[in-house]
Amino acid sequence: MSQSICGKSGIVGLRFSLYPMSDQFVDVIKGALNEADTAKVWLKTDDISTCIRGKAAHVFDVAKAVFLHAAKTGLHVVLNGTFSIGCPGDSEGDSYMNVDDVLSNEAVLSELKIDAPTQFALYPMNDSSYMDLIADVVEIAKNKGTFSGGIHYASRLDGDTHEVFATLEDSFMVTQEKVSHVTMTVNIAANSPSRKNV
Amino acid sequence: MSQSICGKSGIVGLRFSLYPMSDQFVDVIKGALNEADTAKVWLKTDDISTCIRGKAAHVFDVAKAVFLHAAKTGLHVVLNGTFSIGCPGDSEGDSYMNVDDVLSNEAVLSELKIDAPTQFALYPMNDSSYMDLIADVVEIAKNKGTFSGGIHYASRLDGDTHEVFATLEDSFMVTQEKVSHVTMTVNIAANSPSRKNV
Repeated sequence: MSQSICGKSGIVGLRFSLYPMSDQFVDVIKGALNEADTAKVWLKTDDISTCIRGKAAHVFDVAKAVFLHAAKTGLHVVLNGTFSIGCPGDSEGDSYMNVDDVLSNEAVLSELKIDAPTQFALYPMNDSSYMDLIADVVEIAKNKGTFSGGIHYASRLDGDTHEVFATLEDSFMVTQEKVSHVTMTVNIAANSPSRKNV
Repeated sequence: MSQSICGKSGIVGLRFSLYPMSDQFVDVIKGALNEADTAKVWLKTDDISTCIRGKAAHVFDVAKAVFLHAAKTGLHVVLNGTFSIGCPGDSEGDSYMNVDDVLSNEAVLSELKIDAPTQFALYPMNDSSYMDLIADVVEIAKNKGTFSGGIHYASRLDGDTHEVFATLEDSFMVTQEKVSHVTMTVNIAANSPSRKNV
């Protein structure tokens, strides 16, 4: 595959669903999407999921904002989605790449401390060393103190939401420096009644 | 990567979460897992997700059973997860490969007709023709009449649960005949109040 058809625009995307385990799920989803400042990403919601696209830092910032605004309700909520960069089939449209780098949500979010047990998996595409790249990411998580074990088909993180998101963002960004097309699935939970004791 | 370290045991795994958008989510999750006949797959549930492993046909059969038993409550429920086969890091343990091929749930499920709008993405690993393999799967879905469009980072299916699962299973199985390690993310919804008119 030639470099020219690999996405080199740097657009990061996240297609995610927010699942509040509550009769009030519509209000929680709409509330979280409204409370998050999404001005610096392209955003589209359909009946199954929401897609955001833009600079990596803003995509992670908005994802964390949506998760935390939902989680602060105290309800059991989950953000489940897939980050992606460099898909050869992607277009350069639907993106907000000409914005500044100031994170829109971080100041508001810094006060919110909520545990975010997470399972994630990294998929570096079209690269024969992909298992090594996955192992590198486990080391990143260990160094950040969030890694809490490998499980079938995924790795587990435990910690405060800010620490978990920092691990996910670092893991994704370090990998995309080495491989043009990378995806990463994340399953980030809050307030689960069956939370294991860790 | 040598063939020898790619998983050739044929174990298919699915790590999934079932999300009932209801105050009764615990009962719905436990009820669906109990109602499904899971005797022919290895199964383990933690506080974030459930992992099932075994023969491909049984993994898909159990996944459909869990989804339909939850969906028949009429509540908005989602099954979101990742199918996997041939991960080089996988073990041959935790599997039920010495069971017969008779599907345990199909007879009960055949009476349940529930629409299952779905977004899915296929990740054939370590293969330079992976974009072509993804395009092949879109053709499979078109031929089955379930394909309803490409979206950023995923494809959409619409139809009855049985048709949607048949499309997913065919897509996964056809691809794994060509590539040793394949994963496929699925986001399968039922009873959403924001269901688009299609």
